[in-house]
Amino acid sequence: MSKNSLFDGFSMLTEFYEIKTADGYFNSRMRDTVAYFDLFFRKVPDNGGFAIMAGLEQVIEYLQNIEFTDSDLEFLRSKGVSEEFLSYLKDFRFACDVWAIPEGTPIFPNEPIIKVRGPVVQAQLIETALLMLINQQSLIATKANRLVRAARGTTVAEYGTRRAQGSSQAILGARAAYIGGCSMTSGIIPEKDFDIPGVDTMIHSWVQMFDSEYEAFCEYARRYPDDCSLVVDTYDTIRSGIPNAIRAFNDVLLPMGKRPSSIRIDSGDITYLSKRARKMLNEAGYPDCDIMASNSLDEHLINDMVSQGAKIDCFIVGERLITSASSPLFSGVYKLSAIEKDGQIIPKINLSENVSKITIPSSKMVYRLFDMNSGKAIADVLTLDGEEIDESKPYTLFDPDFTWKRKEIESFVARPLLVPIFAGGKCVYTQPSLDEIREYCSEQIDTLWDEVKRFENPHKYYVDLSNDLWKIRNDLIEQYKGVTK
Amino acid sequence: MSKNSLFDGFSMLTEFYEIKTADGYFNSRMRDTVAYFDLFFRKVPDNGGFAIMAGLEQVIEYLQNIEFTDSDLEFLRSKGVSEEFLSYLKDFRFACDVWAIPEGTPIFPNEPIIKVRGPVVQAQLIETALLMLINQQSLIATKANRLVRAARGTTVAEYGTRRAQGSSQAILGARAAYIGGCSMTSGIIPEKDFDIPGVDTMIHSWVQMFDSEYEAFCEYARRYPDDCSLVVDTYDTIRSGIPNAIRAFNDVLLPMGKRPSSIRIDSGDITYLSKRARKMLNEAGYPDCDIMASNSLDEHLINDMVSQGAKIDCFIVGERLITSASSPLFSGVYKLSAIEKDGQIIPKINLSENVSKITIPSSKMVYRLFDMNSGKAIADVLTLDGEEIDESKPYTLFDPDFTWKRKEIESFVARPLLVPIFAGGKCVYTQPSLDEIREYCSEQIDTLWDEVKRFENPHKYYVDLSNDLWKIRNDLIEQYKGVTK
Repeated sequence: MSKNSLFDGFSMLTEFYEIKTADGYFNSRMRDTVAYFDLFFRKVPDNGGFAIMAGLEQVIEYLQNIEFTDSDLEFLRSKGVSEEFLSYLKDFRFACDVWAIPEGTPIFPNEPIIKVRGPVVQAQLIETALLMLINQQSLIATKANRLVRAARGTTVAEYGTRRAQGSSQAILGARAAYIGGCSMTSGIIPEKDFDIPGVDTMIHSWVQMFDSEYEAFCEYARRYPDDCSLVVDTYDTIRSGIPNAIRAFNDVLLPMGKRPSSIRIDSGDITYLSKRARKMLNEAGYPDCDIMASNSLDEHLINDMVSQGAKIDCFIVGERLITSASSPLFSGVYKLSAIEKDGQIIPKINLSENVSKITIPSSKMVYRLFDMNSGKAIADVLTLDGEEIDESKPYTLFDPDFTWKRKEIESFVARPLLVPIFAGGKCVYTQPSLDEIREYCSEQIDTLWDEVKRFENPHKYYVDLSNDLWKIRNDLIEQYKGVTK
Repeated sequence: MSKNSLFDGFSMLTEFYEIKTADGYFNSRMRDTVAYFDLFFRKVPDNGGFAIMAGLEQVIEYLQNIEFTDSDLEFLRSKGVSEEFLSYLKDFRFACDVWAIPEGTPIFPNEPIIKVRGPVVQAQLIETALLMLINQQSLIATKANRLVRAARGTTVAEYGTRRAQGSSQAILGARAAYIGGCSMTSGIIPEKDFDIPGVDTMIHSWVQMFDSEYEAFCEYARRYPDDCSLVVDTYDTIRSGIPNAIRAFNDVLLPMGKRPSSIRIDSGDITYLSKRARKMLNEAGYPDCDIMASNSLDEHLINDMVSQGAKIDCFIVGERLITSASSPLFSGVYKLSAIEKDGQIIPKINLSENVSKITIPSSKMVYRLFDMNSGKAIADVLTLDGEEIDESKPYTLFDPDFTWKRKEIESFVARPLLVPIFAGGKCVYTQPSLDEIREYCSEQIDTLWDEVKRFENPHKYYVDLSNDLWKIRNDLIEQYKGVTK
């Protein structure tokens, strides 16, 4: 699968109500109305302290390639879409402005991570694909980083293709895992298309195919003397697997002047087995033979293994990473925040019956405030467009729900997080390489306090509103609350 | 995205160790060895009583289209794959026999749901894609059926595209949800490519775009008088949304001689709100206006709502269905069970350090035994190839782990579940239509006892071994257990 084929016909990867709504706007007086939409998320997976932005590269590719085929248009015609709108779709040219927080940045609930400004017809139409693409990869980048933090320096390899929820996630999930800090992937396509280093190990069936484990190991060592990694738990790790591996290293590799690459333990008490294995390998003269561990690992198991001194050189993580099994949802939503009318920005709100679903109105900016002494991130502040935060004066943060919770800060720098991606439909962003994103991600996570990075009960990072923005929101809530309009 | 483009270049959707292992077999004396592999799963998601087979159609498409491009081969060359094997891949022709349990069949842990027999090089190579395709859809079909059972006759619509773990799952997950009993999808591609009925509702932003909710509703009703579905919780469901909806129906639809289609409630206490809404709509003369419910629904919430008499005509289920959020893994594995040597089948086992990972050796058949009086499924029995179950005599079932647990049955029919899909690489299976699969699924689930269909602590359905198969397995365990070979 070439990288591009992921996006063949992606334009139809939407829900019918998006098309119907856009058609409705197109045929109403709203046709030329300029609207603002925010893409934000509501909850950090696994109740973690932060998430990681990922998927923007695919969003850009999607927005650059929106195109409806004759067959698509024919189908939409059969669904009752107006001829005028079908013509518009046939000659679709993306015309919106888009800002986004770059991939690899730690992100927090309720702040815009993508902001779209443009004709409401278009800004509406792209909702579903944008959400899907950002939800898909941010979920996995966030999970991968939890695993990497748990591993405390030991390599983590992504090995999830077979359990991925579809081919797209097998590939883009591997990309996201790399952004989040994984070092390798088992997937051939991610390796080929995204230059992610490949990880390799032996498969159980190889051992079973031969009459004995020893024979299987010897044959493998003869064939792959330069990357000889043996799986040692097919029959009995301690009594059979490791002794046979050592015999094969001695009998086949040593005479060739080669060194073994690794062994892999895929079942049993891996902490215990890895210590035994390390000792046996060292005593046999193979202190350089790595030990890989697999078997439904997650951050909690890895954390325990590291704490208990397991002798693991690489954690292989499959299903629980590629599905983010313990928290498989990334809760991105895409909400109207404002429209333009006679040159003015008219803020819009969605109140909903659930307080947690009330949106933040108006066109906004996102600043991250860093402490000048420690370099650590103190808080994110949402402001109205054009509002500046004066770094030369103390700044008062306050909780938007519990406004008596206040904190005054000084000696800080305020960095705007949303950067321009499209201007008038034209891409104005230079996409960094995947390695640059991964490196940037690691640096940015270093700006978070340890308290935010905890797995359990992390400190809630502040995402506050400027005074002016808070007032607009509060006024709109008061205006609509319980009033039949 | 056309149906076929899902499979462009799918041949590379594998992990490097599959290629390396196949290359190894190809260049060893194993090249022409015939091997048997079973694809089975270990655990029913959500601790349910059964799963539903899905994804076979995509497996067939994959196996019919394995093809490596020059670019693929070039990449594999750079990874050290042998020239001989690259030539073989270049001219790859699938040559295996494949049997499978048809889509829509209830399936149980540890029984082969796909069985592959053929040259080990090929049978190995296809592992990852087969697993991914079956895991992907069986997960969602199983989850969808839980939702449908909870809804007890009320329509369930799949609405998950935006939260799907990638485009592939957005599309194929919708297909699987339909097999499992969902009636509709929000996705345009599943509707276009798989003829799944589309579901439609109004989007919140439409309401926000207008100066008032009433105006937004009226404009929508004017534009879509034949399918007017209004979302009523943007500001306040009871005090604003429903009264405005009724006014719009009265003021716009009635004069046109049209009837409203539905309203949708997306937040708040939906059980309570739906009863209030039903009463208000009825009193206003709209007893035919459906009420749709959405907002992170799952089988437990639906079950409660139905039990408490919620007045819902359609449950819209998004993220928790398309990711199977409470249990997002389908634990399919693919294991060598036998090889042929001098015309004999040599059974193979993988013992592992975990008892639950010990495989069932040899080439097997799967029978489902139905009680002749009730028509209900009693048990599945795995036998050796060619073993027949004599329906004219009582048959003794026994637990393969706790062999003293025995049960004698009579008046039963034994139906073989694995049907031929490929013979010598040629597809010999006539794929039923999606509607036929869905109907068959529903019928087959009717053959399960209610005890197996429970959500909590379901009865464990028997998957037993024939005497001969049990003996082979036991002998192999004894032979290998703790013996250094």
